[in-house]
Amino acid sequence: MIKLKRIAEIINGELKGNPEDTITSINSLKNAANNEIAFTMKETIDLKSVKAGALIVKKESRINYPNLIFVDQPYMAFAKLLNYFFPHKRFNEGIDKNTYISSTAILGKNISVGAFSTIGDNSSIDDHTEIHAGVIIYRNVKIGSHCIIYSNVVIREDVEIGNHVIIQSGAILGSDGFGFTLDSQGNITKIPQKGRVIIGNHCEIGANTCIDKSTIEKTELKDYVKTDNLIQIGHNVTIGKSSRLSAQTGISGSTEIGEDVLMGGQVGIGDHLKIANGVMIAGKTGVTGHIKQKCIIAGYPHQEIRKWRKDQVLIRNLENYVERIKLLEKKVKKLEEK
Amino acid sequence: MIKLKRIAEIINGELKGNPEDTITSINSLKNAANNEIAFTMKETIDLKSVKAGALIVKKESRINYPNLIFVDQPYMAFAKLLNYFFPHKRFNEGIDKNTYISSTAILGKNISVGAFSTIGDNSSIDDHTEIHAGVIIYRNVKIGSHCIIYSNVVIREDVEIGNHVIIQSGAILGSDGFGFTLDSQGNITKIPQKGRVIIGNHCEIGANTCIDKSTIEKTELKDYVKTDNLIQIGHNVTIGKSSRLSAQTGISGSTEIGEDVLMGGQVGIGDHLKIANGVMIAGKTGVTGHIKQKCIIAGYPHQEIRKWRKDQVLIRNLENYVERIKLLEKKVKKLEEK
Amino acid sequence: MIKLKRIAEIINGELKGNPEDTITSINSLKNAANNEIAFTMKETIDLKSVKAGALIVKKESRINYPNLIFVDQPYMAFAKLLNYFFPHKRFNEGIDKNTYISSTAILGKNISVGAFSTIGDNSSIDDHTEIHAGVIIYRNVKIGSHCIIYSNVVIREDVEIGNHVIIQSGAILGSDGFGFTLDSQGNITKIPQKGRVIIGNHCEIGANTCIDKSTIEKTELKDYVKTDNLIQIGHNVTIGKSSRLSAQTGISGSTEIGEDVLMGGQVGIGDHLKIANGVMIAGKTGVTGHIKQKCIIAGYPHQEIRKWRKDQVLIRNLENYVERIKLLEKKVKKLEEK
Repeated sequence: MIKLKRIAEIINGELKGNPEDTITSINSLKNAANNEIAFTMKETIDLKSVKAGALIVKKESRINYPNLIFVDQPYMAFAKLLNYFFPHKRFNEGIDKNTYISSTAILGKNISVGAFSTIGDNSSIDDHTEIHAGVIIYRNVKIGSHCIIYSNVVIREDVEIGNHVIIQSGAILGSDGFGFTLDSQGNITKIPQKGRVIIGNHCEIGANTCIDKSTIEKTELKDYVKTDNLIQIGHNVTIGKSSRLSAQTGISGSTEIGEDVLMGGQVGIGDHLKIANGVMIAGKTGVTGHIKQKCIIAGYPHQEIRKWRKDQVLIRNLENYVERIKLLEKKVKKLEEK
Repeated sequence: MIKLKRIAEIINGELKGNPEDTITSINSLKNAANNEIAFTMKETIDLKSVKAGALIVKKESRINYPNLIFVDQPYMAFAKLLNYFFPHKRFNEGIDKNTYISSTAILGKNISVGAFSTIGDNSSIDDHTEIHAGVIIYRNVKIGSHCIIYSNVVIREDVEIGNHVIIQSGAILGSDGFGFTLDSQGNITKIPQKGRVIIGNHCEIGANTCIDKSTIEKTELKDYVKTDNLIQIGHNVTIGKSSRLSAQTGISGSTEIGEDVLMGGQVGIGDHLKIANGVMIAGKTGVTGHIKQKCIIAGYPHQEIRKWRKDQVLIRNLENYVERIKLLEKKVKKLEEK
Repeated sequence: MIKLKRIAEIINGELKGNPEDTITSINSLKNAANNEIAFTMKETIDLKSVKAGALIVKKESRINYPNLIFVDQPYMAFAKLLNYFFPHKRFNEGIDKNTYISSTAILGKNISVGAFSTIGDNSSIDDHTEIHAGVIIYRNVKIGSHCIIYSNVVIREDVEIGNHVIIQSGAILGSDGFGFTLDSQGNITKIPQKGRVIIGNHCEIGANTCIDKSTIEKTELKDYVKTDNLIQIGHNVTIGKSSRLSAQTGISGSTEIGEDVLMGGQVGIGDHLKIANGVMIAGKTGVTGHIKQKCIIAGYPHQEIRKWRKDQVLIRNLENYVERIKLLEKKVKKLEEK
């Protein structure tokens, strides 16, 4: 239970209402009860259906409601309060006794390692990082500070992870790239994959996502890259700062993604391509060539999205056009027979 | 070894043949040997190639074969016999000594927990449920009775699972939803994901499937929902009773799927959409808008399937139509020159 | 540090240059320093930007460079040297004490099993195979010799794996096929999946890939099949020798893939189909029918790739054709009014 005036302080907002009113939790606008606080970015909401004890709104909002807190960024304020009401709890404290930690591993301060996790030779984990249960860390891995590695993640040898990185459960970092050649008998032979995977600071890797190492070069995600679940990142790929990839997207080998690139779900990008900074890629797009400047693309093969949409409408009208061709043919035949 | 008359009892069928003939196993129609039983739903099969010792057929079947058992539902009878000849065996009995189980966890009767699994604080597992090896169950998780949780599944905090649920290996329930905003410096900042994942009774979740929690609301699969492998279910999604999703399908955040919806593989559904009860969605469909009533859809952007098929045929004939346009142009030019 | 003449011996090549020059590592053509060796398959490279201490080239190459080693297969030679400079290291030696191994399991010679792995009743592991950490092997599993099973792999009951097989982290072999029927009350009921998964010799299975067992028949990958990450292989599927599947591809139940079939990423193949030997399938293709002979296909529904490409060009020109139809209509109207 917390007073509204205290909440206003926490989120650095201006309160219009009763500072002594108490709030017990946070909720969505739709579900918030009269002892809960919610937020809205919209001006036109049906206030009759809102029961929240207070609303967080934009500084310039003209919404009329008993308790309002005005802030610069309501969504950021909401995020802050989520952490206030539901503080992050570590999986466990300290190093569980049921772990395997190499005698050559280097552990920083205030680290936790959950049950049934392993840390291999010469791997290092920096301060305040938490490793949950069932996490397998191979040799020569570097993990920065303030990271959270969720359960059943696998981090293969030589992977390097920055600070403030979150890796969701089941993600595999540093699996072998898909590289083969034919030997002299014509049998498919594996090309050893000895490269490194490098993850920048403030990255987040989704559940069951796979990031492959390459033969000898590096696969790299720069700072603030965020990937959703079940994503495939091929060997030797580079992803620029702050790019965000939605679920089930796949990037083929040696492709370079720029900064601030946004991808919808189930996107596929071919190998050895370059995607410029700021490109937006609609869900299910298949990218088959370089994208040299900022634009929005869709379709397979990809196109500029307005062109793609126009073509989709034309396809839906093909029936009509075909009828018109047939009618023209009849008319022309008649004219010819005149 | 079991007599045919006993098999007929087990599947509640009517035997036409020798009740004393013995059967040692069950097999497919194609592969069944003369001491094995098979089933068929078809009337027109090439009996010369069938070697089975007995066939299970529909009540009204007119198939002529030495040993026949007539039942209402041959496929259900086959399922029953599969369980008879290959009875389910638990991964292990009781609680393996190599587990971590919180002192505040509540375990029902007749539970098994395999090696290297963990059960967190205040989590509860109801009677007869089996947890295989390497399963990581976080805090405040509720798992109902008669469930099977296969190896290396991760169940994050606050997830609630009904009775008779099966979760295949590697599935991740309750991973963080993909929610970010920009902070005042323009850096991408994580929105804490504190919501719950709720799985109804009789659900099955496929291998390596991911079901995300949301910021504060719930992600919910109602009773009898069945998902195949490698599926992505975004935060705040609801899936209605008895809907079935095939492999590699992805549902974006806050979408509501109705009851009895069937999806092929690699389907993608956009965010904040509503899909009506009974809708069928062909493989690889990209759903970009609400589907307001029962129908079959395909394509990307999705269309009613007959329209989509017709358009695909028209596209394949485009070459021909273009030729006809060119011919018309020539003819019209000639007519104009007259 | 190794002399060039020794490298030439290892890769069975002919050295042109200084046999006493020393090399310390291997690298890509782009990044190799003057103490590193690289390879190239191309004849036309910008030698000014190359700093490598030596180059491996094709026997017939006419490249002019201080140190050259001529071989039949430069890429194979490169693979050999990768293994020389970065020799494979086992995850651990011997059987970790923190494992669960059934008393009825049979272990060959020179096997390693990492921490927190399990081997179930009657399962056998042949000589020289390494099982990393967190690997769960159920009952009656057979694993051949010289295999590498990476961390957090799950191998379900009755799975059979040949020799020299590599299974990347997080892969699930033998998860239940997606088979259901309606019971007499109309509820969806699971069909027990009691079949086997069989993996041939020299196969490689990608990270987080799922291979389902079927009700009673077998799901089989023949020798030298290579699958990338996040692939779904449905129950009762057969994949012929040396076929290669790229990431996020899905094969539906009971489909038979021939030998030497190549698939791009995110391909989807319907159920009960036959794909002939040598077929090549472009990324994102949706295969909806049998492919009876060697060819290259693309699109959804799939087509021969040249036809598909032609149609894509026609679609992009639809705007133009529609304008021409409109113009024809005007002209014909005028002609009719004459």
